[in-house]
Amino acid sequence: MKSDELMWQEVEEVDRRKEPLFDLITVKSRSADGTEANFIKVTPPDWVTVIPVLPDGRILMVRQYRHGIASLSEEFPAGVVDAGEDALQAAHRELEEETGYVAGEMIPIGKINPNPAFMTNTSYTYLARDLKKVSDQSLDEHERIEFFTLDEKEIEEKMGGETMASAIMVQAWYWYQSGKRAN
Amino acid sequence: MKSDELMWQEVEEVDRRKEPLFDLITVKSRSADGTEANFIKVTPPDWVTVIPVLPDGRILMVRQYRHGIASLSEEFPAGVVDAGEDALQAAHRELEEETGYVAGEMIPIGKINPNPAFMTNTSYTYLARDLKKVSDQSLDEHERIEFFTLDEKEIEEKMGGETMASAIMVQAWYWYQSGKRAN
Repeated sequence: MKSDELMWQEVEEVDRRKEPLFDLITVKSRSADGTEANFIKVTPPDWVTVIPVLPDGRILMVRQYRHGIASLSEEFPAGVVDAGEDALQAAHRELEEETGYVAGEMIPIGKINPNPAFMTNTSYTYLARDLKKVSDQSLDEHERIEFFTLDEKEIEEKMGGETMASAIMVQAWYWYQSGKRAN
Repeated sequence: MKSDELMWQEVEEVDRRKEPLFDLITVKSRSADGTEANFIKVTPPDWVTVIPVLPDGRILMVRQYRHGIASLSEEFPAGVVDAGEDALQAAHRELEEETGYVAGEMIPIGKINPNPAFMTNTSYTYLARDLKKVSDQSLDEHERIEFFTLDEKEIEEKMGGETMASAIMVQAWYWYQSGKRAN
């Protein structure tokens, strides 16, 4: 099959429902060979993940309960891009809210789609350096977050284990390790 | 905050709706300090991703249109674990359906949650070796998939770029590169 034979064209939006975390959209699409079918899309806001590296090389982590897995999860500071924000602003805000640190440098190192099959949003990863502790945590009403530090070797050992089991964290760590830089 | 102060306990399921790709669940949960609030969970089936390595070291890839991003995506063969299957069976099935190859060895190299904040499913990654071409593709009605090969260096260069922008693929590649082995 050639690439143009793989394509689908969106014909119309058949249904859209506003859910708390995303819109749930049904789209009718037509394939290159004329077949029509309905497909589902979900539209979460964009996400940001921040890997904050302290002057001694240790990395700031957060521990919190995650409702999807119904257990505690160790992650890099992360959150959603709020309305009216860009990803860089969200990265600065989430870092400060969850840890009380601000970053002199916030460097984009990767962006990705969480799952192109049905999700429309982008997940941005930043490397934060030149960190200064300026305040306490400033958490949302239903956030309970503890922060702590790990070194690179400890993260590498834990990544993918029971307490560090998020694909979004793994892809962030991949950008960090690969030394890639993104726009 | 100590770990037990971070915990939430599910009190009751407030609502559950069956959507095409997942159930959409509202759960009422109670924090350690007694606060109650509703949270959303989505329950896709488990996913599998297969990294199939040919005897010459080249890796089998698939190219397909992805409705979430509305464009073509280059990925490792992947799909959902069907009802009545385990992840290993799904890995064998998806590899054969999408490429016509069967694997003498199918080695689990990682598992992850796509997003612990609200998703309940697990994404399994396998390394497939001892590959033999036994048939043509055998695609679902609405699948249009082209397969091709890349070497490790080409994948490493493309990973995270416009045509290879899936967090699920990045985490699979991380397992492959780290040489980790999972159960």
